[in-house]
Amino acid sequence: MSAEIISGTQMRQEILAELEHEVKAMQEQHGTVPGLVTILVGENPASVSYVTLKVKTALSLGFHEVQDNQPEDISEQDLLALIEKYNNDPAIHGILVQLPLPKHINEDAVINAISPDKDVDGFHPVNLGKMVIGGDQVRYLPCTPAGIQEMIVRSGTETEGAEVVVVGRSNIVGKPISVMMGQKGPGANSTVTMVHTRTKDLAAHCQRADILIVAAGVPGLVKPEWIKPGATVIDVGVNRIGVSEETGKAILSGDVDFEAAKEIAGKITPVPGGVGPMTITMLMKNTVKSAWWHLQEKV
Amino acid sequence: MSAEIISGTQMRQEILAELEHEVKAMQEQHGTVPGLVTILVGENPASVSYVTLKVKTALSLGFHEVQDNQPEDISEQDLLALIEKYNNDPAIHGILVQLPLPKHINEDAVINAISPDKDVDGFHPVNLGKMVIGGDQVRYLPCTPAGIQEMIVRSGTETEGAEVVVVGRSNIVGKPISVMMGQKGPGANSTVTMVHTRTKDLAAHCQRADILIVAAGVPGLVKPEWIKPGATVIDVGVNRIGVSEETGKAILSGDVDFEAAKEIAGKITPVPGGVGPMTITMLMKNTVKSAWWHLQEKV
Repeated sequence: MSAEIISGTQMRQEILAELEHEVKAMQEQHGTVPGLVTILVGENPASVSYVTLKVKTALSLGFHEVQDNQPEDISEQDLLALIEKYNNDPAIHGILVQLPLPKHINEDAVINAISPDKDVDGFHPVNLGKMVIGGDQVRYLPCTPAGIQEMIVRSGTETEGAEVVVVGRSNIVGKPISVMMGQKGPGANSTVTMVHTRTKDLAAHCQRADILIVAAGVPGLVKPEWIKPGATVIDVGVNRIGVSEETGKAILSGDVDFEAAKEIAGKITPVPGGVGPMTITMLMKNTVKSAWWHLQEKV
Repeated sequence: MSAEIISGTQMRQEILAELEHEVKAMQEQHGTVPGLVTILVGENPASVSYVTLKVKTALSLGFHEVQDNQPEDISEQDLLALIEKYNNDPAIHGILVQLPLPKHINEDAVINAISPDKDVDGFHPVNLGKMVIGGDQVRYLPCTPAGIQEMIVRSGTETEGAEVVVVGRSNIVGKPISVMMGQKGPGANSTVTMVHTRTKDLAAHCQRADILIVAAGVPGLVKPEWIKPGATVIDVGVNRIGVSEETGKAILSGDVDFEAAKEIAGKITPVPGGVGPMTITMLMKNTVKSAWWHLQEKV
């Protein structure tokens, strides 16, 4: 029996429709819309393409969207000053600085300079700390883990008491999703194990997982026989494994052997079209949240 | 064969001797010593006894120690102003507000008001966030988890690739120690599972653990047969299970049945005299660290 495919592309449509509705309501009730600034430094092709998609999505939702692109050689000081300008701009609710930054700029300093109130990427230490504390303190969850949790919940996967195994311990996926799935409350309450390069028996851990979240960046790392029959498999890997002769575009593969895995898993995300589209969607959701929070504070 | 007892009381002596040495060196080299302010609101007997011990330990190390006790009915605003005063006091490197606070005061607001640079308890969201990020960003680790990690390392327990199971998901123990043991680097690099009230098979998880950290607050929760032979067992529970007829003092018990467990474990911490003494010790260590950092910033 073949697994149910959890389509990020389709969920994105659903969530964006919800957000569009919210933006309209905000416009009608308060005469304002969410404001997002995207700051792209230099012209790295992958970054250009990510930012372009973010801008396009923001505009399609009716956001106030400011593209403030900067040359590759902007000084760290000037970039920090630019961020400070947007920290103080009441029309801006979310500040996105596209990573990676050129080597002469300290990325941590830049992330830490964004006001935690406008940190819609959820990378600021304050927001990560609040994520750990949980409950009412949570403000912005980092976008990829938030997207993963949303996919798990919207696909109808039971999380309460579920065995969750997270493969990979990055700051933007593995660590935060491990914390989030172990928290109290709906959509969480799972028993989480985070495995990584130093883990002794990767296969045995994966085989226990009711929900297997793979964010290692290693194509085909997870073998089909590591998947528990009926498990929900979330594949976060986006690996360029070649170039299509026909289209000239990169051929993408996840960290899981999709074709084999879908015969064993209960539900599975494809690559592309799985977690990828959810990340930008959650960025939009965080920006709408921020706009509501800022409106409440004004009231 | 009976387990090796990991004595927190003895480790405390070792670490305090190291810190005393550092304080003397700081005094000689820079003419200054670490400064700690303890703020106790009201007269809760347990809080009085904790603060007294903290003050006594700080004084024994040669710290500049300020006891700034406040009446039960201090307003939140006045308490916040007091914290702000110490945030700006260059002779103070660590600010400790004894918890719990009276109900009319918002604890989160108080914790968040302490400058992250002086947050030697390690409870501020910024410091929790930096703990998640790991590496160079880490500043103050929360004291109890830091003490647990120190006990594991100093007892010669191998953490690299070890299976760590953490029982309990509190903000001050379970969640932070789970993150810390899974980080890259020495004294960590473990495969961590955090289990809790919603976990389906607590016994099976505990039985996998090379290092079992129990912080559930339930006396005798962990049964001897849940312990893997040879495992290192860290019992964080401090439960008052009665009062001694002889001394009138509380009888304390951990979350693990110590007498039975020590016949199976390789290494085990007792209660009392285990993790307890390490918490205050790590508070002192954080304060010394803070003093060095503040000195470096001045240089």
